[in-house]
Amino acid sequence: MHMVDLIRKKRYGGALSDAEIDAVVRGATDGSIPDYQLSALMMAICFQGMTKHETARLTRAMARSGDMVDLSGIDGVKVDKHSTGGVGDKTSLVIVPIAAACGVKVAKMSGRGLGHTGGTVDKMESIPGMRTAIDRAEFLEIVNRVGCAVIGQSGNLCPADKKLYALRDVTGTVESIPLIASSIMSKKIAAGSDRILLDVKTGSGAFMKTQADAEALAREMVEIGALVGRKTVALLTDMDRPLGHAIGNALEIAEVCDTLLGHGPADLSAMCLELAANMIYLGEKAETLDEARRLAQAAVESGAAFEKLCAMVEAQGGDTAYLRDTDRLARGKVQATFAAPESGYIIHADAEQIGRASVLLGAGRETKDSAIDFGAGIVLHKNKGDGVQAGEPIATLYADSSEQCDEAQEALQAAFVFGPEKPAETPLVLARIE
Amino acid sequence: MHMVDLIRKKRYGGALSDAEIDAVVRGATDGSIPDYQLSALMMAICFQGMTKHETARLTRAMARSGDMVDLSGIDGVKVDKHSTGGVGDKTSLVIVPIAAACGVKVAKMSGRGLGHTGGTVDKMESIPGMRTAIDRAEFLEIVNRVGCAVIGQSGNLCPADKKLYALRDVTGTVESIPLIASSIMSKKIAAGSDRILLDVKTGSGAFMKTQADAEALAREMVEIGALVGRKTVALLTDMDRPLGHAIGNALEIAEVCDTLLGHGPADLSAMCLELAANMIYLGEKAETLDEARRLAQAAVESGAAFEKLCAMVEAQGGDTAYLRDTDRLARGKVQATFAAPESGYIIHADAEQIGRASVLLGAGRETKDSAIDFGAGIVLHKNKGDGVQAGEPIATLYADSSEQCDEAQEALQAAFVFGPEKPAETPLVLARIE
Repeated sequence: MHMVDLIRKKRYGGALSDAEIDAVVRGATDGSIPDYQLSALMMAICFQGMTKHETARLTRAMARSGDMVDLSGIDGVKVDKHSTGGVGDKTSLVIVPIAAACGVKVAKMSGRGLGHTGGTVDKMESIPGMRTAIDRAEFLEIVNRVGCAVIGQSGNLCPADKKLYALRDVTGTVESIPLIASSIMSKKIAAGSDRILLDVKTGSGAFMKTQADAEALAREMVEIGALVGRKTVALLTDMDRPLGHAIGNALEIAEVCDTLLGHGPADLSAMCLELAANMIYLGEKAETLDEARRLAQAAVESGAAFEKLCAMVEAQGGDTAYLRDTDRLARGKVQATFAAPESGYIIHADAEQIGRASVLLGAGRETKDSAIDFGAGIVLHKNKGDGVQAGEPIATLYADSSEQCDEAQEALQAAFVFGPEKPAETPLVLARIE
Repeated sequence: MHMVDLIRKKRYGGALSDAEIDAVVRGATDGSIPDYQLSALMMAICFQGMTKHETARLTRAMARSGDMVDLSGIDGVKVDKHSTGGVGDKTSLVIVPIAAACGVKVAKMSGRGLGHTGGTVDKMESIPGMRTAIDRAEFLEIVNRVGCAVIGQSGNLCPADKKLYALRDVTGTVESIPLIASSIMSKKIAAGSDRILLDVKTGSGAFMKTQADAEALAREMVEIGALVGRKTVALLTDMDRPLGHAIGNALEIAEVCDTLLGHGPADLSAMCLELAANMIYLGEKAETLDEARRLAQAAVESGAAFEKLCAMVEAQGGDTAYLRDTDRLARGKVQATFAAPESGYIIHADAEQIGRASVLLGAGRETKDSAIDFGAGIVLHKNKGDGVQAGEPIATLYADSSEQCDEAQEALQAAFVFGPEKPAETPLVLARIE
C-alpha cells in the first residue's frame, strides 16, 4: 500500500478501504507517514469528503491509536457530554452535577480553552485547591462514590487525532465535517462512556457559523456513534451571542453556582435543564424526555444538584467555601465599564468578538502556553435583544491592568450592533438529532 | 503573511497575490516553509486551479529561484524546444540540427529519461565520447561556432521547481495544468532562449492522455510565454503509439541519423519537419511557415542537417564515426523477436506499455539511480494501422539477457490490440497553438 496511491484515490473522489484508513492512522501515529503526505490527504478529504463508513472507520482507528479508557469499574450507564465550544459556555459544570444528582454516572474528561473559547478544566482550576490531573484509579473511585468527576485529559488518548489535528491546524484543513466529526468522536469513544450527548453550537461564537454546517456535523457524529455502537444524541444550540452573563474562569464558576441554585441567567438555566434532561434520559434514569426534564428541574430546586457539585469539587481537592460564597473567588483587581455607545436595541452581540475581548483581559489563551488570569473576564449586563440608552453599562470588565481594559474596550466596540427595533427572539435549542 | 492563510485562501478559491506567490517560492527554495504546508497548498491548487496571472507569476518566481542562464553572448534569436516526453521521441536530435542548419541558434538543455519515457541526454551519451556536462562558457562557444549544442541541465536551475516537483511526485499532486505548465515554462525561461517551441504530446504514451488536457496545457504554456515576454508556440502531437520505429538510446540515435539523411520512418520524418519548420519560423529565418518547411526539407535533402548533427557531436567530444556508420553503435547482445499473436490490423499500439517493455530490456530507468544499457531497446517492424499475419515479427528486442527479453515479451502482450479492419489514420500534428 503506497501512501501516494491513497492520496490519489481520495483526490479523485474514491473511498478508502478499512485497511487503507487503518494504515493511514497507524502511519500517522508511529510517524512512518511523512507529514507532507498526511497534509495532502487531509486537503483532498476537505474537497472530496468521506463516506459515513470511512468516517466511522477513521473515528474507530483514531480512538484505538492510544489508550482506550476502561470504565467498566463504574456501575450503571456512563454518559459523556461534549460541547463544540463557545463563549461563556459553562454548561458542563452545571449539567454534570444535575445529571449525577439524578443518578447518572458521569466520568468526564475535559479540555482547556484556546483562542476565543474557554475550557472547562481552566474554569475548574479557578476554584482553589481543585485538582484536574487525577489518575485513572482515583477518577473511577470518585465517579463511583460521588457520581461524577471532571478531569483533564490524561494518558495517551487518541495520539493519531492529536497528530492530525496539529497538522490540520497549520495547513488550512480544519474545516471538514468528516474530519471534525471523527476527531471529536474518537476522543469520546476512547474516553470510555456508553452514551454520548453532544452540544453542537452554531452562530458567531461557534466553530460552525451556519446552522446548516452545525446540523451536518451533528448528524455525522450521531451516525458515527450509531456505527461504532455508542448511542449518541446531539442538541443543536445557539452560540450567536455569549451564553449567560459571565465570560472568564472564576466569573463563570460563580455563574455555575448561581444557576445550580436556581437563580442563574434565564438563557443559561433553560439550556442547561434541556441538556441535563437529555443526559438523564440517555442514562436511563427517566422513561421519557419530559420526565427527565422534571427530574432535572427538581434536582436544582431541591439543592441536590448544587450539593453534587460541591461533593465533586471536594473529592477533587477543591475548597467548596468558594462555591458557597462566590464573592471569595478571584476577581480582576482592575475593573472598567463598557457603556453603550448609542441608544437602541442590541440586535447582535458577537460572541467571537466578546470572547476575543475576554482573552485580551487575560481570561483566555492566545497560544497553548499562555498563562490564564482566573479573575479576568467580562460580566454582561445586557445581551442580544435588550434595549439600552447611550452611556448605559453593557458590561463590566475585569483584568489585572487598565491597559488590558482599554484594549478590551476597543475590541468590544465592534461586538455590538444596535438597531431601533427589538430583534426576533431565537430559540436556544434549535434541534435535537438522534 | 502566514502560510496557513495563503493555503486557506487558495482552498476557498481565492487568487494569490504576486507577493504571496513570491513568498511561497522563496520559502520553498530556502526551506523556511515546511513541506506539509507546501503539499497542502499544492493539493488545494489541484482542486481550485490558478488564474493565468497567478500561473505566470509562479513561473517567473520559480525561474528566478536559481540561476538565470544568460545567452546574450550568442548572436541572433535563440530558440529553445521542449517536448512533454514520450516513447521513441527522438525529435530533438533531429530538429535541432535541421534548425541550426537553417541558421537558427539553439542552446538547449535536456533531461534524462524516467519511467516509460526516454531522455535526450541519455540518447546522446550512447554516442561514444559524447559530453553532456559542459560548462557555460564552452556551451556558448559551441552554439556560436556550430549553431547548436544540447547539454544536460547544469548549475542551480529552478531549485524551487525541483523542490515542489519532488513533493508533488509523492503527494498525488502532479496532475494540475497550472502546476505542470509553470514547472515546464520556469525551466525554459531560466534556460535563457528568446523563443520557445513546445511539443505537447497526447495519447497513451504521453503524460496527458486526452487531447483536451494536452490542449489546455499547451494553451496555458503559450499564454505564460506571452505574459513573461518569451514568444511561445505549441504543437499538439500524437503520442498514442510510439514515434518512429526505435525505442532505446543507441537504437534511436541510429534512427536520428536515418531521418536526417532522408530515409527515416515516415511518421517521425513528417513530424520532425513540422517541428523544425516552426523553430525556423520562430527563429526568424523564414517569412512564412511554408517557407520554413521548404528550408527544413532542403536542409535534409542537401545533407546539411546531418552534417550539423556531426559538427555538434564532434564539438561535444562525440565520435562521429558512429553516426556515419550506425551499425557500430551499441546493440544488446541478446536479441528476440516479438511475433504477432494473431492476424489482423494493429488497432492500438500502446506507447506507455511499449515504453515499459523497453525499460524491462534495460533501455530506461525505474528510479533516478538506475543504470541504462545503451544497446537495449525495441525496434518496431509494425505499428498502429499495419496489417500482420499471426507469427509475423512485430518487433525485435535487444537486451543483455534472455530473461529481460522474456519479461519484455510478456509486457508487450498487453501493448497491441488487433482488429479486422484498418483503423482510421490519425494526424501526427493535431493542432498548432500560438
